[in-house]
Amino acid sequence: MNRESIYVANQPLSEALKIWEQALKEIGFGQRRTRVIPVDEALGETTARAVYASHSSPTYNASAMDGVAVRFEDLGFASEASPVVLKSDQYQSVNTGNEVPDRFNAVVMIEDVHTRADGSIELINSATPWQHIRTVGEDIVATELILPAGHTIRPIDQGAMLASGVAQVEVNATPKVTVIPTGSELIAPGSPGKPGQIIEFNSRILAGYLREWGAEVSVLSPVSDDPELITEALLEAVKRSDIVVTNAGASAGTRDFSSTVLASAGRVVVRGVAIKPGKPVILALVDSKPVIGLPGYPISAILTLQLFARDLVYRFRGQRPPSGESCNAIMSRPMHSPMGVDQFVRVTLGRVHDTLIATPSGKGAGSVMSLVRADGLLTIPVGSEGIGAGETVRIELMRPMQEVDRTLVAIGSHDNILDLMANGLHQLDPPIRLSSAHVGSMGGIMAIRRGEAHFGGTHLLDEQTGEYNIPFIKRFLAGMQLRLVNLCYRQQGFIVAKGNPKAVRSFTDIVERKLLFINRQKGAGTRLLTDKIIRESGLDPGLIAGYDHEEYTHMNIAVAVMSGSADVGMGIRAAAVALGLDFVPVAEERYDLIVPEAFVDDKRMSAAFDLIQDQQFMARVETLGGYSLRHCGNVIYRQ
Amino acid sequence: MNRESIYVANQPLSEALKIWEQALKEIGFGQRRTRVIPVDEALGETTARAVYASHSSPTYNASAMDGVAVRFEDLGFASEASPVVLKSDQYQSVNTGNEVPDRFNAVVMIEDVHTRADGSIELINSATPWQHIRTVGEDIVATELILPAGHTIRPIDQGAMLASGVAQVEVNATPKVTVIPTGSELIAPGSPGKPGQIIEFNSRILAGYLREWGAEVSVLSPVSDDPELITEALLEAVKRSDIVVTNAGASAGTRDFSSTVLASAGRVVVRGVAIKPGKPVILALVDSKPVIGLPGYPISAILTLQLFARDLVYRFRGQRPPSGESCNAIMSRPMHSPMGVDQFVRVTLGRVHDTLIATPSGKGAGSVMSLVRADGLLTIPVGSEGIGAGETVRIELMRPMQEVDRTLVAIGSHDNILDLMANGLHQLDPPIRLSSAHVGSMGGIMAIRRGEAHFGGTHLLDEQTGEYNIPFIKRFLAGMQLRLVNLCYRQQGFIVAKGNPKAVRSFTDIVERKLLFINRQKGAGTRLLTDKIIRESGLDPGLIAGYDHEEYTHMNIAVAVMSGSADVGMGIRAAAVALGLDFVPVAEERYDLIVPEAFVDDKRMSAAFDLIQDQQFMARVETLGGYSLRHCGNVIYRQ
Repeated sequence: MNRESIYVANQPLSEALKIWEQALKEIGFGQRRTRVIPVDEALGETTARAVYASHSSPTYNASAMDGVAVRFEDLGFASEASPVVLKSDQYQSVNTGNEVPDRFNAVVMIEDVHTRADGSIELINSATPWQHIRTVGEDIVATELILPAGHTIRPIDQGAMLASGVAQVEVNATPKVTVIPTGSELIAPGSPGKPGQIIEFNSRILAGYLREWGAEVSVLSPVSDDPELITEALLEAVKRSDIVVTNAGASAGTRDFSSTVLASAGRVVVRGVAIKPGKPVILALVDSKPVIGLPGYPISAILTLQLFARDLVYRFRGQRPPSGESCNAIMSRPMHSPMGVDQFVRVTLGRVHDTLIATPSGKGAGSVMSLVRADGLLTIPVGSEGIGAGETVRIELMRPMQEVDRTLVAIGSHDNILDLMANGLHQLDPPIRLSSAHVGSMGGIMAIRRGEAHFGGTHLLDEQTGEYNIPFIKRFLAGMQLRLVNLCYRQQGFIVAKGNPKAVRSFTDIVERKLLFINRQKGAGTRLLTDKIIRESGLDPGLIAGYDHEEYTHMNIAVAVMSGSADVGMGIRAAAVALGLDFVPVAEERYDLIVPEAFVDDKRMSAAFDLIQDQQFMARVETLGGYSLRHCGNVIYRQ
Repeated sequence: MNRESIYVANQPLSEALKIWEQALKEIGFGQRRTRVIPVDEALGETTARAVYASHSSPTYNASAMDGVAVRFEDLGFASEASPVVLKSDQYQSVNTGNEVPDRFNAVVMIEDVHTRADGSIELINSATPWQHIRTVGEDIVATELILPAGHTIRPIDQGAMLASGVAQVEVNATPKVTVIPTGSELIAPGSPGKPGQIIEFNSRILAGYLREWGAEVSVLSPVSDDPELITEALLEAVKRSDIVVTNAGASAGTRDFSSTVLASAGRVVVRGVAIKPGKPVILALVDSKPVIGLPGYPISAILTLQLFARDLVYRFRGQRPPSGESCNAIMSRPMHSPMGVDQFVRVTLGRVHDTLIATPSGKGAGSVMSLVRADGLLTIPVGSEGIGAGETVRIELMRPMQEVDRTLVAIGSHDNILDLMANGLHQLDPPIRLSSAHVGSMGGIMAIRRGEAHFGGTHLLDEQTGEYNIPFIKRFLAGMQLRLVNLCYRQQGFIVAKGNPKAVRSFTDIVERKLLFINRQKGAGTRLLTDKIIRESGLDPGLIAGYDHEEYTHMNIAVAVMSGSADVGMGIRAAAVALGLDFVPVAEERYDLIVPEAFVDDKRMSAAFDLIQDQQFMARVETLGGYSLRHCGNVIYRQ
């Protein structure tokens, strides 16, 4: 039989899971190994068999009070009127926890005991049998079930085992997982990357998740794209592990190696699953061990790890993966459903009034930050007709609901002050999270209109009136009650290399010296300013090289200049300062926050207003360079 | 100033917390220490300051596809009718992740490329600028905020830091906590305890919780009740720790030592808080370090640790304690509120129909098993007038709601088969938890009547008819639709020491030889049987020594006989077998399960029915001894 023909390609997720499950059954995955460890070290481990009490607790009849042990019969009907006197051989002093000798059957509290000079005691209350005595086995009786098999041990369980004389416990072994990053282009974290080299960080993320799920993880050094080297690493890893995870570099060539290597070293069970992202995942068996070949893009790798490795780790330990929190949310914009795949969409969530609004993050599978910022995951199942704006969807939460509820959602133009705000708000008690999406000023206005955001930053210049922001609000947010609050004035200008080697002063310089320009996206405030200045210079934008190359943030413009892929771009001074570049001021613009009236008194929003008018905060903003806070916090306009 | 006079005694909880907070502020607790660690080791740590990207990601313009890099201008309006041909110097093959050289500005997918014999390629689609290229900084822009200060690091955050060139991160230090168990009566776990000795397990429980909260914990060996030794241990611990926890043995004497020692070594801030349990807790400062003197009883110690230490551990790490899940439940029985204290009540929860029923566990602060079994905690605030049966209360959950929902609640007479059932049900997928409260047959019937339980075990003999259970059901559960399902027949008889040294055959033997008897509580099925046999023997119960000493379970009777505190008791053979004692059969009794009709088809209940009729399970029951399963699972009666 041709080994290559065994696998199934591009199965629907449900099918792939079924086939994989069958393969795991064949190799007997889940027939668990166990180990006996001291109870002291068993926190978080899972019992491999039921634990029964080895002796009782208490192991003797113990006084539950400080007082005297007596025979209750001796006290008869003692009362204040007719107290009972016990001689020293008729009672014994006991502290809480002391043994009550066999000849006694009750304890009287010290407060009710009057000791007399001759050593006898006087008591004025009768007693009931066994009062204030913790009898043998009151808490735990020898042979009683303490914990069933398959129970994850908590601190109190450790206590119960020790209390019942159980000092060792048999627990399920921890799965050993080896992560093999492959790809000649990979370099270790910390080294500065050259073009074509990729910092190998995927394996660290994967190891982190695997550890959180309870695995013992080793991460190998990146293995070059050489089938022999990969095979060698794989076979060695399989020997030492219960589960192996390979992670291709971003290159498809590498992925192909993985599949060839897995097919020749073992058996590929599933090759490709109809999911997005994560389609190229490979599920294989090598030496009767599960091997999961993850795609190269970080988001694809994490998602497929969660889909195919998480359950294995828990199952190995005799546990079930905890099912995370989920919630209903309203989709802020339509999502079409790609044909024939289960689609997994990262979303950010915002509590806007009483409604939870989900906004797709819309970034590619290469974006680690999109997952850092994501609040939840939306699954659009295969065969779905997509999701309409305003439709209610079920979101799997990626952070506690509490944290989502404490999140202030900003969508609009980016400014570095927002980063300072994010950090400042997070220092509050309780912390407020600023979830900030950078989609440009117009994108922010549209998000405000759809009710997706609590506020949005905007710096849109109306060419006809020369006025900032207000004309756009009147046009696109007519009828909405809102305030326009100034955040800052900031210098816009040319971002150029250190020392301005090409001596850029104007767009005319750029055209004449054939310099490479880098532009902002249409709708960005900076783009409007750029176009206005170009027009005022009487230039044809078609003459500016790179005019069509659009970037989404000031910092991206600065990065392009720093990396040399452009000579000059328009942006704010702070972006140039941050990267140590030079800056040629062209204009001062006003950057405002649009805040719907409904959120002005929201606690999170008030905290943000307080923060931006805090002296210390303002001083920190000044150090960014190019800002004036002369009207910061002022209401510029209200409708 | 007299040091002793500084503390406040027995404050209300809210006051105590305020005073403690003030004292912590004075010593500057929470002015955090930080340390710089590799990002690789930072999982679960909390950022001490904001983390900004040190470089961009991608660091170069990277192909997002396998294909060829081209200049989009060269493709013009390429179409199938008029394909464009590019010579080998007009394109370059790239794999996903490869650098796109500066002279190109678009990538065409390999599927759309037709390579010709002369090395040129033919393309039939036009391209847009920068298509299929991940530009520099597309994911992360240098200097951008990656994580705010005070953020707890997840695997994806590690990835984002590494991707942006951050290899080291400054995190808050972990608090060092030393736990000092004190008490001369304490012995190490694993050693068999002599009367008067207590196995020291509290410190293990406390260390477990502290570790779960994120502390680095050392547990000292138990220190004897000697103020000098305790002082020495305390001062040494304070030197090496950020927080110190002392835990008295159960003796009040020991507690007094703690308070004296703390007052002379430092300053007692709060002595005693108006809470139940946990009243004797001491909050002190020694050498400007918080020292918490916990009471001796395990439940009191755990509760006060949670009230006073948990927040300190989280705060030290710059985190906030996660607020646990909570839920509403209906109280199954009234709880009175003790005067002047906040009371904390462990409860078990059962989903009965759609209602969550909370039942107080009703065990003392010494009962570790009560906390193992508890599902949640109910707070009855000071000043409350108590809680009526049927009242809705808020419960802080101690296990996930999911687990509570998968719990089958049994209240009634105990039988060892229930332990086997508990373990068997827990092996199912998903596991079912059997929460089993042992309150005797009549207690079970009352619980069924109150709707607290899904089923109850009962073996009540009606003296007049000689019939088991049914007459009691007719009397106490009239009008309730239910089934009586047989679990087993079991031998009841005298549990006696190995070899039956006192040759017990009858109650007459017990009376004549003045043997010490141990009895079951009133309402227990075994008690009814005992009383019937005594009456049939024509004996006066008053003549039986120990007749008034009541225990709640078969196993407790067996333990009393084994420990020598009684010569003989009535119970089931399985209890004698379990502890290696001898057994003199007296009668065979029927043990049935009462199941309200509403639960007969409940999935959890069905699973239990399936289990008790499983051959393997039945074989295991036979090994317990003294059982007949001849009618196991049969419906005996229905109403």
